[in-house]
Amino acid sequence: MKLHHHPISGHAHRVRLLLGLLGVKHELIEVDLSKGAHKSPAFLALNPFGQIPVLEDGDIVISDSNAIMVYLAKKTGATDWLPETPEGAARVQRWLSVAAGQIAFGPGAARLVTLFGAPFNADEVIERAHAILRLIEDHLKNQNWLASDHPTIADIALYSYVARAPEGNVDLSPYDKVQDWLSRIEALPGFVPFMHAPAELLASA
Amino acid sequence: MKLHHHPISGHAHRVRLLLGLLGVKHELIEVDLSKGAHKSPAFLALNPFGQIPVLEDGDIVISDSNAIMVYLAKKTGATDWLPETPEGAARVQRWLSVAAGQIAFGPGAARLVTLFGAPFNADEVIERAHAILRLIEDHLKNQNWLASDHPTIADIALYSYVARAPEGNVDLSPYDKVQDWLSRIEALPGFVPFMHAPAELLASA
Repeated sequence: MKLHHHPISGHAHRVRLLLGLLGVKHELIEVDLSKGAHKSPAFLALNPFGQIPVLEDGDIVISDSNAIMVYLAKKTGATDWLPETPEGAARVQRWLSVAAGQIAFGPGAARLVTLFGAPFNADEVIERAHAILRLIEDHLKNQNWLASDHPTIADIALYSYVARAPEGNVDLSPYDKVQDWLSRIEALPGFVPFMHAPAELLASA
Repeated sequence: MKLHHHPISGHAHRVRLLLGLLGVKHELIEVDLSKGAHKSPAFLALNPFGQIPVLEDGDIVISDSNAIMVYLAKKTGATDWLPETPEGAARVQRWLSVAAGQIAFGPGAARLVTLFGAPFNADEVIERAHAILRLIEDHLKNQNWLASDHPTIADIALYSYVARAPEGNVDLSPYDKVQDWLSRIEALPGFVPFMHAPAELLASA
C-alpha cells in the first residue's frame, strides 16, 4: 500500500497512526503542499478533492481519512477496531461524523489559522473546539474509549487534532479526562507520534 | 423503533428518508425545538449533544444521523444501501464524511442562517457550499449515484441539505447533474419528501 500524506496534516496522521497500530506495511509518499502538489493534475486524478491523505492499494484508490480507516479495518479483518454489529458500527460512526464535522471545523480549523493563516474566524472555531471538547470530556467520565470498552477507529479519528489543539490556541488544561485518553492512545503498541508544528510556522501566523 | 425528529431538520429528514426507502415501520416523536426541548434533561439523557435525530430501538439509543443510517442498514441487512466489502464501505464512508463536514458546514449552515439567524458568516458558508457542489457536479458526470452504481446511504446523507440549499441562498441552477441526481432520489420507491421552509421563516431572516 502507498499513502500520500504530509507530516503536518492531522487527517493524514490519523491514517498513519492506524497503519502503525494495525502493523500494516506501507510506503509513504510525501505530497509537497507548499508547492501545491495536491492541486496538480496527477494528484487530482487520484483525488478530485485535492486533499491528502490518499491510499493506493493496487488499483484501488481511497481518499478521505475516515474512509481509508474503514477500508483498512475491513481489509485486515480488524473487527475490534471497527465492529460489524449494527450497534457497534453505529457507535463508531457517531464519532467519525464528529471527526469530519466539529473536529475538522473546530480544533482542526483553529490550527489552520495559526499555521497557515486560513481564513476561518478564529474566535468561532476556537469556541466550537471547546464545545466539542466539553462533550468529549463528559463522555470520557464514564468510559476509557469513545465508542466501546476498547480502542476503535473512533479514537484514532479524533486523536490527532485534539492532541495538537493547543497549536490552534485551544487550551486543553480544563479537560483532564481528554488528556488521560490522549495518553492511553499514546501508550498503544505501534503508536505513531504526530509531529509538533515548527516554531517558526506558529510564530509567523 | 422511535425516531425523535423535527420536520425542518435535514439531519432528521435523511433518517426519515432512509426509513421510508427501507420500509421500516417506526413511530415519530417530534421534538419541539422552538421550546428548547432538545436541551431538556430528558432529551440530553438520550443524546448529550442535544441534537436530533435520535433513534430508539428497544434499549438501544443511537444519535447522529450518519450513525443511525449505518445502524438501520446493518440491522435490516441492507447491504445494497451499505456495502460490507472494504472498498464498497469506504466509498460510502467518503460521502458520510462530506455530509458531516462540507455539507453540514456549507449548505446546511447557510440554511440555518436564513431560517434561524444562526451566527455563521453567510458568505463563507455559501462559498463552501458552492465548492462542494462543484465537486459533486463533476463526480456525477461519470455516474448516477455517489458511491456505487446504485443508491446507497451516501446519496441519502447528502440529499436533504442539497435539495434545500436554495433556502440558504445557495443557487443550484449551475448544477445540472446535481439536479438530475436529486430527481433520481425523489423517484425512488418509498421516497419521503422534505418540507420546504415556511415563507414567514425565510422572510424574517
